[in-house]
Amino acid sequence: MALRTIERVFIALGACAVIALFSLYVTKSTAQSGQPQAEGNSSPIYGIAIPAGYREWRLISVNHLSGASGKLKQVRAQLGNDIAIKAFREGTLPFPDGAVIAALHWSENLSDENNKVLAIGFPGADLQSSVAGSAENVQFMVKDSKEYAATGGWGFADFKNGKPGNEALHQTCFPCHEPAKARDYVFTRYAPTP
Amino acid sequence: MALRTIERVFIALGACAVIALFSLYVTKSTAQSGQPQAEGNSSPIYGIAIPAGYREWRLISVNHLSGASGKLKQVRAQLGNDIAIKAFREGTLPFPDGAVIAALHWSENLSDENNKVLAIGFPGADLQSSVAGSAENVQFMVKDSKEYAATGGWGFADFKNGKPGNEALHQTCFPCHEPAKARDYVFTRYAPTP
Repeated sequence: MALRTIERVFIALGACAVIALFSLYVTKSTAQSGQPQAEGNSSPIYGIAIPAGYREWRLISVNHLSGASGKLKQVRAQLGNDIAIKAFREGTLPFPDGAVIAALHWSENLSDENNKVLAIGFPGADLQSSVAGSAENVQFMVKDSKEYAATGGWGFADFKNGKPGNEALHQTCFPCHEPAKARDYVFTRYAPTP
Repeated sequence: MALRTIERVFIALGACAVIALFSLYVTKSTAQSGQPQAEGNSSPIYGIAIPAGYREWRLISVNHLSGASGKLKQVRAQLGNDIAIKAFREGTLPFPDGAVIAALHWSENLSDENNKVLAIGFPGADLQSSVAGSAENVQFMVKDSKEYAATGGWGFADFKNGKPGNEALHQTCFPCHEPAKARDYVFTRYAPTP
């Protein structure tokens, strides 16, 4: 039972507790086809494909996720395309059409290498450094207020190894984001620049 | 005693266990002055100022740090300028001159908001989501093999609230990075793209 919950967590948190949208041309190309459908490498329901070059986008924030079992540990980063970054920085709500947020999730690996160094530099502090391990999944939220009017103006997509999750998974995205309605369904806040 | 260790950790991990360099023009401007000195908003020893626009740089990786006391918890991101990102992606070692790595550190804040949503979506999993809180500090590593020949070709800088740490702090940077000599003194590895 617990394991099944964790599995569900891996998959759907993969899919929904975060935040992301897409580059405008992708949105437009799906919008032109009317009601978007899953097609090959696009997400079911929303018809969103992985936007080319999203790894070049700018940083919104980072976060950390852990589960009771100790088995689920992830480090995460959220990146935004130009429209999304501008909206975050200026506090624009709702996000304008064309905003895309990408949520990148990695398994969290304890770094023995780092910890050895930390133990020498900071004896007694028992510092634990965890780093990004293998890629778990990437999610996108794409703002198109007309195309995705039924889901708060956002389309959702979740990919693992380049393949979109199934329809059941994508049905969980919007309900999970609804509690963040006051912030246009986006959980992530822009991290201050140190 | 323990507290003093933790304080040291806050300051120097702030300063040294991570990884970053600077935009080329900054390096050059300090290089022109010969032996770099701390001057106002530049780091002691290395003479490095905060490079303008570093928050626009691309993501290298993220990580998580925690201490035995439970008081030290940080989420972290490393960004690279174009030269650094190219070197990371191509596995180029040593890093070429002009490479700059920025390490952004935030206090880690447990997100009640996220956890409420997670508790509904994933009952029994006891998921804990932590997000970037206040900015702690930012560090830079700047590659200039001539200017910083005595410290592996790297200059170091640590800033909190826009002000550089003192000389004693900056003296810890290079010794701490020496164990990573085989990777040109850089601990951070490039996170795979999900």
